[in-house]
This record gives sequence, structure tokens and C-alpha cells, in this order.
Amino acid sequence: LARHDFRGLKQLLPTLAAPDLAHLIDHQPVAELLIVFRLLPLAQATRVFEYLTPSAQNQLLGQLAPEQLTAMLNHMAPDDRTNLFERLPPAFVRTQVERLAPEQRRITLELLGFPHDSVGRLMTPDYIALREDWSMTDVFDFIRRHGASAETVTMLYVVDEKGILLDDIHIRDFLMQPPTAHVRDIMDRRFVCLSAQQSQEKALADFRRHQRIALPVTDAHGVLLGIVTLDDILALREREDTEDMQKLGGSEALDEPYLQIPLFKMVQKRAGWLVVLFLGEMFTATAMGFFEGEIEKAVVLALFVPLVISSGGNAGSQATSLIIRAMSLGEVTVGRWWQVMRRELLAGLALGVILGIVGTIRIALWQGLHLRDYGPHWVPLALAVGFALVGIVLWGSLAGSMLPLLLKKVGFDPATSSAPFVATLVDVTGLVIYFTVAYAFLHGTLL
Amino acid sequence: LARHDFRGLKQLLPTLAAPDLAHLIDHQPVAELLIVFRLLPLAQATRVFEYLTPSAQNQLLGQLAPEQLTAMLNHMAPDDRTNLFERLPPAFVRTQVERLAPEQRRITLELLGFPHDSVGRLMTPDYIALREDWSMTDVFDFIRRHGASAETVTMLYVVDEKGILLDDIHIRDFLMQPPTAHVRDIMDRRFVCLSAQQSQEKALADFRRHQRIALPVTDAHGVLLGIVTLDDILALREREDTEDMQKLGGSEALDEPYLQIPLFKMVQKRAGWLVVLFLGEMFTATAMGFFEGEIEKAVVLALFVPLVISSGGNAGSQATSLIIRAMSLGEVTVGRWWQVMRRELLAGLALGVILGIVGTIRIALWQGLHLRDYGPHWVPLALAVGFALVGIVLWGSLAGSMLPLLLKKVGFDPATSSAPFVATLVDVTGLVIYFTVAYAFLHGTLL
Repeated sequence: LARHDFRGLKQLLPTLAAPDLAHLIDHQPVAELLIVFRLLPLAQATRVFEYLTPSAQNQLLGQLAPEQLTAMLNHMAPDDRTNLFERLPPAFVRTQVERLAPEQRRITLELLGFPHDSVGRLMTPDYIALREDWSMTDVFDFIRRHGASAETVTMLYVVDEKGILLDDIHIRDFLMQPPTAHVRDIMDRRFVCLSAQQSQEKALADFRRHQRIALPVTDAHGVLLGIVTLDDILALREREDTEDMQKLGGSEALDEPYLQIPLFKMVQKRAGWLVVLFLGEMFTATAMGFFEGEIEKAVVLALFVPLVISSGGNAGSQATSLIIRAMSLGEVTVGRWWQVMRRELLAGLALGVILGIVGTIRIALWQGLHLRDYGPHWVPLALAVGFALVGIVLWGSLAGSMLPLLLKKVGFDPATSSAPFVATLVDVTGLVIYFTVAYAFLHGTLL
Repeated sequence: LARHDFRGLKQLLPTLAAPDLAHLIDHQPVAELLIVFRLLPLAQATRVFEYLTPSAQNQLLGQLAPEQLTAMLNHMAPDDRTNLFERLPPAFVRTQVERLAPEQRRITLELLGFPHDSVGRLMTPDYIALREDWSMTDVFDFIRRHGASAETVTMLYVVDEKGILLDDIHIRDFLMQPPTAHVRDIMDRRFVCLSAQQSQEKALADFRRHQRIALPVTDAHGVLLGIVTLDDILALREREDTEDMQKLGGSEALDEPYLQIPLFKMVQKRAGWLVVLFLGEMFTATAMGFFEGEIEKAVVLALFVPLVISSGGNAGSQATSLIIRAMSLGEVTVGRWWQVMRRELLAGLALGVILGIVGTIRIALWQGLHLRDYGPHWVPLALAVGFALVGIVLWGSLAGSMLPLLLKKVGFDPATSSAPFVATLVDVTGLVIYFTVAYAFLHGTLL
């Protein structure tokens, strides 16, 4: 197909839906992407471009003829364009912005003027604004003239002569009215709006709570600046969830699909945290060093080291991933740390007791069944392992749950307290707990 | 406010938006919920109920007067009702279904007839269906009459006399036409549709790819059965992401918000996996037992056990969370396992070499700076730790990336191969690698 028959392609391509075509060509070499883009009409080329993955977009940007690129950028929705520019090198963006049509250039510069991560960067000025004294006929005439360039016709906005937002109304409400009705008849003057300076996190929360297709953005005086649509919010939410999950797994966010990110870049993103964790984990060797004398006297103690410390790490991973997810869903906030702590104190204690009992029974069972001989002092040994488990699991649950809240409190991303990070923390402290408990139980016998 | 002034409340409540009101009362005791619901008009009560969290809904269901409950259930959107019924005990559902109005009862039974986790369960039959020979005036008249009960007026559907779906058209396309145009003039006969029997996972993927507000559902003959709207898909996606993350952290999915799930239930959900992991981790004690002789001869080997095995676990957690997320985004499929394996072989090797070098340098440095004396054989010891790290990190990356794909292949949820699970697996095998490498390097000297 995509070999020689250019004429056939030229006829076939425009009949395909943009998402399907984007999906088809996304993994093709850039040379074939270029052919496809040369054959597509401008409007469709722009749509397909918007659907491509970032890495395919980047490849194309470097190769497209400058005129085609400028034409496509002029044609893109302002919010998608801002989004694209955010990922590109500033020098390249500057050149491209200068080449835009005056009106698009003004819009772009305005949107790029809002702080990174602010609602302003997600905004598009292509909304439909109505006046309250218009009749339904006026409204539908207006939509017929301006609907094509609007980002959505599902939510319409009513503003006064100063541009101040008065209401947002769903298209359904207009469609249900007789043609003689006026806009003011269906206004309820109740609306939710975002501020352009607000964080995108706030926008996510508002969209989640109100389940709207679009929310208006106003300035400090209530003037309607633009709208944020659900598709941008969903892309943002998906990106944030992906970052959360990758960070939770103990890696930097990849920012590119797993199979597409260059190998060297992926190793870079993963090595950083692994080395940090490794350096942290080195303290286990130091901690073990303190107890070298005890280990020499009772090698049997060393046998349970991985078991005991990993249980703390597992309890910590559990707690940290539950809390991080609950935070990103807005269920848990820093202000409720005390409730979380109380829950984890009780849950950690219960989990610790369960594992402690299982551990003690395991040692007693192996001893009783003569599967292994832990020596004459196996009873205090079993108890030492059991009690150490209670302490370590409790400590793991507390550390795992409090760390994300603490990080958030001091302004870091809570997801940075990844499961491996908590595990490392708990490994080192767990060793100290284990050997201290063991010393208390076995002092005078094994030690 | 919500204390005594019932009259004031009765005036205030209807002016509040349903999501806001739901948010306000969600954490209130059930007695206050009941008061609020008694004061609300039916339509708004139903909307507020739909926005409440599952636990608040459950509390209310047990306490509302049967008549009010039936009235509300009759008033609910069919898809929301199916969703609610799925969570309730079958006996209760049966009673409630019998009490529904005949038409609603028929719809509910039909929707409940589709397999659990199928697209059918997400579907609503309240869509707007048009004929291709209608004029725009006919269309808008129809919407005016039937739009109030439709789930969406943003996507409209064209069917033939047999009910076979011919096209889906965005309301924008109708609004842009002169009143004299006909439906067939704007039809392109291209549409994406779901099958009622398909898995919800497939629906998620289609919505992600096509970025639609609603998708039609057809049977095997192409007859339009209903539509699935984006809000249901988003709720589903959020739930799946939450489950993924909780499972990745090594816990069962909680199914309830962290702060609201009863403590005992939470401990239950977390204890299961912790005990399984603990039992798995016991093999570390067994594995260490095999090398007890070596440890006795060279206690120094035991010092590095936590460091070495946790590095493998960390590498495994990284790989597993990257792959699980990539799978749920549809970037990685089982069929591409070979590509993943090749990437992880190379990445794992690179990461292993990096950590191996850091580890070897650490031992040499401590020895050189006289921070610690690892004895006369510190060079082979340092090399043994370094080479063991290469092997273990490589193995961790491979195991962590392949396990989710393997689980998916045999029909399990890939997210079950949680980070702690991979860590446990790698801990046990990592010990064997470590002591084997150590034996090879230190045989004849320390061992």
C-alpha cells in the first residue's frame, strides 16, 4: 500500500478518519510520514498531526517543509499549539511563533504568557459567547456562522457588554426551547469557573467534581478569557497518572511511550533513582556492620534478615501506593494526616501481629518437624523474629503513609516517595529494629 | 445550618448544584443525609444521589423510605442504575427491580442480562435516533420533544427502518446547516461502534483512540442497541487506574476510598498479599540456609546481602511498573514481548553495570580510606559484589518486565505482579546469584 501507488493513496487518505490514520502511520519511518503528509489536504493533515504521539510529532517537525509547518501551526487549535510549543526548544518556538498569522501569534503569545502548569496554558479562546437579550433564532444564526471555528458547541457562554461571564448553558437547553424564547429565559446564573492563574491540579479537581465537558476561565474581574475542554483535561490526567505510577515504581517519569523512548534515555531516567536507592541501601551494610559481632556469634540471625526487612518494605509499599492514589483522587489531603496516621497505626499493628504470628509459627514448625534445627534457643529466637516483625511492619506502614504527606507539605511531588524509596528507608531502620529486638530476647543465651 | 432551620433548608437546597450538594453532604451522618433527601424535590434528589460516593449511597439505600427509593430508581439514568445494582446484594436488587415501572424494569433486566465487565453493562438506551430523509426542521423538532430524556444531545444517531445504525453525527454538524438541508446531506457513513458483548477494556481503548463523547453499541446485525457515554468510561478508567496502582503496591484493590473503608476490611485486603509475600520471602531464609557454611566462614558476605538483593528488587519494581502502565495505555501488548525483552536485556545490563561499578568503588573506597577493613581479600570481595549486582539487576529487570506479560498471556490481571511480588521473587533468586558469584570469586581465599 504505502509503497508506490501515490495516486491511489491520494484518493484513499482523505477518506480515513484522523485518529485511525494517525494510529496507522504512527510507527512508520519519518520518510513515509512525510509522503502521507504531503498528500493530505491541510485541514486533515493538521487533525492527523494533533493525534500523533509526541515522538512522531517531533520527527515530523524537523522534516516538514517550513511553509507546510507554518500553515499547519496556523490551523491548529490554540490549546493544542500551546501544548506542542511547551515541549519544544525555546529557539524553535520563537521562530515558529514569528511565522504565525498575526491573530494566531497574538493568541499564542498570550497563552504562553501564563505560568507553566497554570490553567491559562490549557485554555483556548475559541468559544461561543452570547448576549442575554438574544433570541433563539439569533443564537442559532450565530452558531451557524461561528460554530466551525469554536472548540465546542456543547457549552455556550453568556457575557455582558464588558465581557464579564454571566452564565454557561448547555446546548441541550437551547435545543429544548421554542424559537421565540430568549437567552435570559434559560439562564440560571449559576456556573463554575476556573481562574487562568490557577494550577492545573485545581482544574483537574474541578472537572472531576463537576463532570463537565468544558469549564470557562475568567480573570480577576470575572471577564471570560477562554475555556478549558475535557479532552485537554483527560490528556493531562492520563499523563499525571502515568507519571505517578512510574515514579511510584522508582523511576523518573519517562515522558515518552515505553517502546518509543530511545534506550539510552530510558537507562538515564531509570539509573538516577536506582543509584540513589543503592546509595541509600548502602547504609544497610553499615547497619549490618554494627551487628557483625552478633552475627558472628549467631549466624542464624543473618538467615532471617531478608525476610524481616522485606516485610517492612512490603508494608511500606502498600501504604505509600494507597496514600498516593488517594491523594491524587483528592480523597486524602495533607490536613487529614492525623486521620491517616491513626488508621495506619492500627492497620500496621494488626498486619504486624499477623505476620509476627506467621513468622513465629514457621520457625516453631520447622523446628518441631525437624526440617531444620535452630539450636537449643529456638524459642527466644522465634519470639525475637515475631516481635521484630510487629515493630517493622508497623514502622513500614507509618513511614510509607506519612512520607507522601510530608513531601506534599514541603512542596514536593508526593509520588517521589516511591515504593522502592520507602522500602530502602524501612530496610535500614528495619535492621536496627531487628537486631535490637534480637539482642533483647537473646542476650545471655545466643548473644 | 443543617441543624434546625428546615424551612430555610427547603428554600436553600434546590438552589445548589447537584455535585456541590453531594460533595457537601457526602461525609455527613446518615441521619442528616435523610433529612436533606426528604427536603429535596425528586429530580434533584436523584441527581444528588448519583453524585454521592458509593459508601454514602449504600448508607442511604438502607434507610430511605421504600417509596422514595423506588421513585428515585425509576428516575435514574439506566446506565447509572445498572452500575448501582452491580454493587448491591442480588436479593435486594431483585426486590427493587420488581418495584420499578414496567418500561424501566424491562430496560434494567436487559442491561443486567449482559455479561459482567461487558460493554452492555455500561450502555444506556436513551439516545436520539434520526432517519436519513428527515430535514433539519424535523431533527430539531424531534430533539425538542425527546431531548430531555436523552443521555446526550451532542451525538445523534441515524438508523434505518430496521434499526440498523447508519451514521453518528455531531450536533455541531446539524447546527451549521440551513433549515432546508436533510440528514442525508451531512452523513458520511463512517462511524466507530462497540459491540454489547465486548469487554469494557476494548471500550476504554476505543474511547482513548477516538476521543469521542459517546460511542454507539450495536448487536451482531448492526442494530443500534444503545450508547456508552464518556462519563461512564471515565469513571471506569479512574477505577481501573486506582486498582492498578493499589495492586502494584502489593495490596488488593480497596474498592472504597481510603478514609472511608472500614479498618477491618482494609486490614483484610492488605493482609492477604502481605502474608503471601511473607511466605514467598521465607524461601530467602531457606536459600540463606544453604549458604550458612559460607556465611560462617565469611560473615562479611552477609553484610552485603540486603544491599545486593534490594537492588534487584528495585530494578524489578521499576520494570514492572513501567510495563504495567504501558500495557494499560495500550502501548505494549503481549504480542510485542520480544521487543520488551530486548529492551530490558540491554537496559538491565546497562543499569547492572552502573550499579556494579558504584558498588565495587564503594568497597574499594571504604577500604582505601580505612573507613572499614574488609580483610586481605577485599579485591575479590569487591569484584564479587560488583559482578553479582550486574547479574541481579539484569535478572530483576527481565523478571519485572516479563511477569506482567506472562500473567496477561495466561489470562490474569497483569497488575497482580505487583512491585513487592517481583521484589520477593528477585530476592530469593538474587541470593542464589550472589552466593554463587561470591563462591566463584572467593573460592580458595575467603571460602
